[in-house]
Amino acid sequence: MGQKPNISKGTRDFNPEQVRRRDYLMGVIRKHFQSFGFQPIETPSFEQLSTLMGQYGEEGDRLIFKILNSGDYLSKANEKALDERDSRGLLSSISEKALRYDLTVPFARYVVMHQNELTLPFKRYQIQPVWRADRPQKGRFREFYQCDADVVGSNSLWQEVELLQIYDAVFTELGMPSIKVKLNHRRLLAGIAQLIGEEKNVVAFTVALDKLDKIGREGVEKEMLSKGIDAEALAKLAPVFELQGTGLEKLASLADMCPKDSPAQQGIEDLKFLYQTLNGLQLKTISLDIDLTLARGLHYYTGVIFEVSAPEGVKMGSIGGGGRYDDLTGQFGLKDLSGVGISFGLDRIYLVLEELCLFPEALDNTLEVLALNLGEEEAMSAMKLLGVFRAAGLSAELYPQVARMQKQFKYADKRGAQWVLILGTEEREQNRFLLKDMAKGEQHEFALDSDQGLKHLLKVLRND
Amino acid sequence: MGQKPNISKGTRDFNPEQVRRRDYLMGVIRKHFQSFGFQPIETPSFEQLSTLMGQYGEEGDRLIFKILNSGDYLSKANEKALDERDSRGLLSSISEKALRYDLTVPFARYVVMHQNELTLPFKRYQIQPVWRADRPQKGRFREFYQCDADVVGSNSLWQEVELLQIYDAVFTELGMPSIKVKLNHRRLLAGIAQLIGEEKNVVAFTVALDKLDKIGREGVEKEMLSKGIDAEALAKLAPVFELQGTGLEKLASLADMCPKDSPAQQGIEDLKFLYQTLNGLQLKTISLDIDLTLARGLHYYTGVIFEVSAPEGVKMGSIGGGGRYDDLTGQFGLKDLSGVGISFGLDRIYLVLEELCLFPEALDNTLEVLALNLGEEEAMSAMKLLGVFRAAGLSAELYPQVARMQKQFKYADKRGAQWVLILGTEEREQNRFLLKDMAKGEQHEFALDSDQGLKHLLKVLRND
Repeated sequence: MGQKPNISKGTRDFNPEQVRRRDYLMGVIRKHFQSFGFQPIETPSFEQLSTLMGQYGEEGDRLIFKILNSGDYLSKANEKALDERDSRGLLSSISEKALRYDLTVPFARYVVMHQNELTLPFKRYQIQPVWRADRPQKGRFREFYQCDADVVGSNSLWQEVELLQIYDAVFTELGMPSIKVKLNHRRLLAGIAQLIGEEKNVVAFTVALDKLDKIGREGVEKEMLSKGIDAEALAKLAPVFELQGTGLEKLASLADMCPKDSPAQQGIEDLKFLYQTLNGLQLKTISLDIDLTLARGLHYYTGVIFEVSAPEGVKMGSIGGGGRYDDLTGQFGLKDLSGVGISFGLDRIYLVLEELCLFPEALDNTLEVLALNLGEEEAMSAMKLLGVFRAAGLSAELYPQVARMQKQFKYADKRGAQWVLILGTEEREQNRFLLKDMAKGEQHEFALDSDQGLKHLLKVLRND
Repeated sequence: MGQKPNISKGTRDFNPEQVRRRDYLMGVIRKHFQSFGFQPIETPSFEQLSTLMGQYGEEGDRLIFKILNSGDYLSKANEKALDERDSRGLLSSISEKALRYDLTVPFARYVVMHQNELTLPFKRYQIQPVWRADRPQKGRFREFYQCDADVVGSNSLWQEVELLQIYDAVFTELGMPSIKVKLNHRRLLAGIAQLIGEEKNVVAFTVALDKLDKIGREGVEKEMLSKGIDAEALAKLAPVFELQGTGLEKLASLADMCPKDSPAQQGIEDLKFLYQTLNGLQLKTISLDIDLTLARGLHYYTGVIFEVSAPEGVKMGSIGGGGRYDDLTGQFGLKDLSGVGISFGLDRIYLVLEELCLFPEALDNTLEVLALNLGEEEAMSAMKLLGVFRAAGLSAELYPQVARMQKQFKYADKRGAQWVLILGTEEREQNRFLLKDMAKGEQHEFALDSDQGLKHLLKVLRND
């Protein structure tokens, strides 16, 4: 007792202003998910350990938070592992649950478990926290929200069109300046690897290409050589590095470079369709850009992939991304269910909005009316008025106890109250009350119990 | 791989309908919290183990979900406890984090850690999940939401008034039938224990009294006797059992029974103030009822306590409760901060609304328009129209691929689409399109690209 409390490493408290801003951001995203016909689901915070382990590679397994079994957990522990102090060997005998690591695996589990209730294509969105035992650093937390929309059960490219439209709608409503969405296609990457005779090295090829931004062309070539991609292949790659022009021009050049039967041609066709369709539908804020170096690490992507860049001038990595996958649920026994999804990087978008001062000012107007507490009967009259204000959708409260005016005004000021309601003995006797506009310092007088004046009063309060 | 997936015991997936209903319920509560000047905060899902342990009694300690340390957790394990297979002794050396058990302790930690940023009184609300390793049973889950509003830093009874008004406002908007709120006061309980000469047995006395509902007067008396409360004291208690009349009448009888200097008198005064004030402010849905058997287990309450009963005829325990406490934050080193709070039992209120069919029907209208996919160019024209609908706030989607009409209509039906947009080759040539009202089976025809018709169209879509 009397301990100095602390918060757990890599986690955050959110104060009222932050919660309101986060709610606003999630609200905008949610609204557009819904307007495109996506439906919400939620899954539990923890899953069975066996559902999550092995899904995210060895590094992922390490970063999953495991929950200790309840009660006398050692009674069923693996004795050999215990004697050998083998943390990894002991794990499954003392922990059978783990915190959600992303929303994708729980979604796959959901689809498989509920397949008989679902109408395909199933369009779901999900906005929930995930947890990772990462080393905390600036902008990287152990608890953070993911915000995903996916369609499963359709391989139509119209889904990609609608998902890209969602990015456009959300970023437009958030008031973002123009935003680039990089596009690529896994088959195009495979086709290029084939073109240069390195189809067996497609993974190393892709991983190296992905680093072009960071290490430059020379660095990429060096890495490819070190991974066994030969110099001859690199020479053939030169035209790919040197692609020029608009997206459609780049695609045309690529179509010429690759053989007719190359898997690249399907990728090029898909991307061309997206370009042409979205041009026809007129994007407002996002613009598309073919980027052959875009790989997106996640191995389950098989078709179109995309990544949203932060607005120019804002130093931040990508603020969203997604792509098409052929087999999300196969691991849980449901084969051949194709899908495509996008995600919004909530924490980063929050920082962008903050940096560009794009959060609406109205979010900070949280208290419209503070009523001074000027005695028991006066407070009672004030409370009746507050009831009227609240019913009209305003936020209003009574200062909790009788105190000096100065103290009450100071509280009103700190709370950011827009109006202070003054209803003292004198006002009560004269059947009237005052409202002080805290920004302008002006006082307005109104008659108590006058239905006539109410409309005018509410108009004044709302600054109409 | 190919494993049959399962969900963790005591946890739930929420399908779209359930999420929408939960969002609606939380939205109503949130709205009224805000209109009474409460501000949102959020705290992390896990806290340091030391923050939570010892806060909820021995039973609580057992029910807290502990998170295993990451990496080679055995390397820092308590060797003696390990050798002796002492699960409890080992705990703090292999786990330093635990999942939130309620919202009250994290709130207390928050207030202490952020005391320099807060304006007192601080009115916060918090709606987040908590986790308990309870044995799952009907209506009891291992993950569930709590929904709390508290004011700290004021001992004014006007806070109790506003909190009870929040109950009234929320249950009124939810369309609930009349709802009883039981009131009691910890000092009244202490005063009665004193009255019968059992002040030293006040806890046993309170615990037994709390069971009146379940075990009847005879059972309560038997339990009191077994706990060392003597027969003479029980005889003195008889008038308390036999209190009659309205709340104010009961309070008057109690005031007569108890000595002038009894702590009970303060409790009686407080309750009288609440009764009179709330009568004056006119409650719509809740009604107050003095219930001396109401104890509310939580030991930190010190003043007024209350509990909300489910509507008559619905078999369900309490659907909310709260009370005043004198010292929430003392355990973390911040003394003398009085507060009062309420909570809503979200899961139970959900069940009540379901049983009474009180969820708004509109929640299930999630897809306003499904556009048939009748070819690439036709789909393109349809997509342009969908953009107009969405901008007007409607939810709309394109059937993902060209398919038989019958199949597309079946999907529209399963998705509960209100309108189906038909725009085929013929319609396109004639510069028009059809909307089919799925409920009535009627078709409406509109001209394409006519601004004039748009207002009419949106009116039709919204059923204005």
